[in-house]
Amino acid sequence: MAQHNAFYAQSGGVTAVINASACGVIEACRQHPDRIGKVYAGHNGIIGALTEDLIDVSRESDETIAALRHTPAGAFGSCRYKLKDIETHRAQYERLIEVFKAHDIRYFFYNGGGDSADTCLKVSQLSEKLGYPLTAIHVPKTVDNDLPITDNSPGFGSVAKYIATSTLETSLDIASMCATSTKVFVLEVMGRHAGWIAAAGALAGQGEGEPPHLVIFPEVAFDRAKVMARVEASVKQYGYCVIVVSEGARYEDGTFLADAGNTDAFGHRQLGGVAPTLAGMVKQDLGYKYHWAVADYLQRAARHLASKTDVEQAYAVGEKAVALALAGQNSMMPAIKRISDTPYQWAVEAAPLAEVANREKFMPRDYIREDGFGITEACRTYLSPLIQGEDFPPFENGLPKVARLAKHRVERKLAAFTI
Amino acid sequence: MAQHNAFYAQSGGVTAVINASACGVIEACRQHPDRIGKVYAGHNGIIGALTEDLIDVSRESDETIAALRHTPAGAFGSCRYKLKDIETHRAQYERLIEVFKAHDIRYFFYNGGGDSADTCLKVSQLSEKLGYPLTAIHVPKTVDNDLPITDNSPGFGSVAKYIATSTLETSLDIASMCATSTKVFVLEVMGRHAGWIAAAGALAGQGEGEPPHLVIFPEVAFDRAKVMARVEASVKQYGYCVIVVSEGARYEDGTFLADAGNTDAFGHRQLGGVAPTLAGMVKQDLGYKYHWAVADYLQRAARHLASKTDVEQAYAVGEKAVALALAGQNSMMPAIKRISDTPYQWAVEAAPLAEVANREKFMPRDYIREDGFGITEACRTYLSPLIQGEDFPPFENGLPKVARLAKHRVERKLAAFTI
Repeated sequence: MAQHNAFYAQSGGVTAVINASACGVIEACRQHPDRIGKVYAGHNGIIGALTEDLIDVSRESDETIAALRHTPAGAFGSCRYKLKDIETHRAQYERLIEVFKAHDIRYFFYNGGGDSADTCLKVSQLSEKLGYPLTAIHVPKTVDNDLPITDNSPGFGSVAKYIATSTLETSLDIASMCATSTKVFVLEVMGRHAGWIAAAGALAGQGEGEPPHLVIFPEVAFDRAKVMARVEASVKQYGYCVIVVSEGARYEDGTFLADAGNTDAFGHRQLGGVAPTLAGMVKQDLGYKYHWAVADYLQRAARHLASKTDVEQAYAVGEKAVALALAGQNSMMPAIKRISDTPYQWAVEAAPLAEVANREKFMPRDYIREDGFGITEACRTYLSPLIQGEDFPPFENGLPKVARLAKHRVERKLAAFTI
Repeated sequence: MAQHNAFYAQSGGVTAVINASACGVIEACRQHPDRIGKVYAGHNGIIGALTEDLIDVSRESDETIAALRHTPAGAFGSCRYKLKDIETHRAQYERLIEVFKAHDIRYFFYNGGGDSADTCLKVSQLSEKLGYPLTAIHVPKTVDNDLPITDNSPGFGSVAKYIATSTLETSLDIASMCATSTKVFVLEVMGRHAGWIAAAGALAGQGEGEPPHLVIFPEVAFDRAKVMARVEASVKQYGYCVIVVSEGARYEDGTFLADAGNTDAFGHRQLGGVAPTLAGMVKQDLGYKYHWAVADYLQRAARHLASKTDVEQAYAVGEKAVALALAGQNSMMPAIKRISDTPYQWAVEAAPLAEVANREKFMPRDYIREDGFGITEACRTYLSPLIQGEDFPPFENGLPKVARLAKHRVERKLAAFTI
């Protein structure tokens, strides 16, 4: 069969394992030299395609590509850049296809969350309309775990493992200090609209009274009096109180507890600072000595503590994306299907992009405990397999070893394009 | 020789490896049943001794004690409680000796920082004055690395490894996002008076321009204009800027950048919030999009990423403490002596407590780069060996396995004592 090139790009907030998906895509492409010529990566995501800023991945050694599996963040550069409406900004989409055409790219692998699934779908639709034979596959990724169809999103399992571990470790710290010092600890975690990451913190405790004593979800309206009563009860009963709070925690009227007032390129508000806000309330209402932490990027970059399950799934969806493309399955996303909880078994299946794009998956209400401050057994059953197994990176000189790419650029063939 | 009991207590802020020292003390004691009967641990540190709240460690299995080596925080409970002046509060010191006498305790192992070294020394002096044959040994511990005599403090190497790794991982994250999103990342680390932990962040980068681009030390007066100029230059040259800032960062006049306004039991001000403060300056002065993280207890509890060197040293000082006690070396502290940098070689030697107590070790000026924003080669040579090697804990069900102590209490023999 004819040989054509492939394009791969990373989009949106990166994760500890998005490069494992890149590794899966690239290694799978290299196994089909008869069908796939070169893999070109977009420098800084889709912007690399629009501006014809392409990295020639074929010039990276097998060893470097293999090292992507244990390298966090986006090795080729990601971007927060959402293509606008196809009706009003058709030129952007046409430009993509023009670039693909110029470099004989017939396979489009787009590694991102909900927004990029939408872009991927639109590019696929337009190329079809224009008669350009492109196979577009979306490779799922997001720490927020809010993609539909797939049982879980690659990237989430590792952040979940990091937050559960950090909650366990810091809880032991507070427990040993609380007699004379810190009584309340607040850990702020990511998750703008869905409480998946906050829920993962709850995996640190098993039995009644084991920390965290409170999990504060964006799905449950924040009630200061109710929260403070719980904090006080926990300190009285156990001597201390550990709180895991989502950055998206909000009041009944939708106002976020902490709002930095910025918005990102997708129009989402940039959040941060709910932990100090909540700690301030504890101080004001109850007078307890507190400490707080904001894990921020530490949690999503923590490849050193990745979940083995997550790494394997991230790699598998990348690998499967290539298989789908070679099978001519256009406009698809490899999705993780859970076959059984115990033992945990999973497979990767194809899901039509039209069913994925622009839809968020929220925590089911029955995953949150009746009182709103913890998770149910159903949630634990869902989450627990996702943090299983360790996949420590190799270390060198005391630090994790990461892939160092040469990033040779592909020669431009088209006129410049302003985005 | 006659058999007597030993007392062990943990003091001050806990670390990822203070329990490894406990493990060293207890396992060494168990090897000398002819000399050492039972090990009693103070529940919540020295308060346990004052209130005769003792944990009978002899009733914990060998397996549980071995698991202390990979369990973070203070398994017996720590405390922030400094004994007052011996001249005005002699009763407290006498009470300690009374409790030791009642339980035939002749070995006193106190695991803490500078303040507890002072307590240990005073108890030793008073027991000598009162004719009670007590051998008092201080076991060094502090993430701040500010103890004198010892080349480094157990507990520091692991937090250094955690901060260096987190700086590396998050730097990769920002680097992949900076084209369209976050340009400046601020990581706040511990270190009230000394910049040792902040310095460790600099280990993440090697060459010119490698992140972190700025390290802000408490030792260098904070100059907003100068810092902002550096941030701007970094963003212009590299596309982004990673800042590691010490919680103790302060202005020329000594005012902390962020001051929560609380003081702890030792009279130290409770700090926190320098990262958001600095991020706010970046936003205000330069308009860059930022993210910030406050690692807080996550960094000192992170046993999952402990330095193998640190774990071995923490265990070794515990073990050595018992050897010193059995050799009748009263009022001593096992100190780490560096024999060579490359290959890194170290030994544990005895240091007189009188030379340790109430002294802080600051960063040598020649460890901080001329411009004040980074570390020198001398500093790198000092720090690098301390983060070498990994000592991952066993994991169970996706989470680190920790020691679960039974904590059987010793029957009280004395009247209650109010502290």
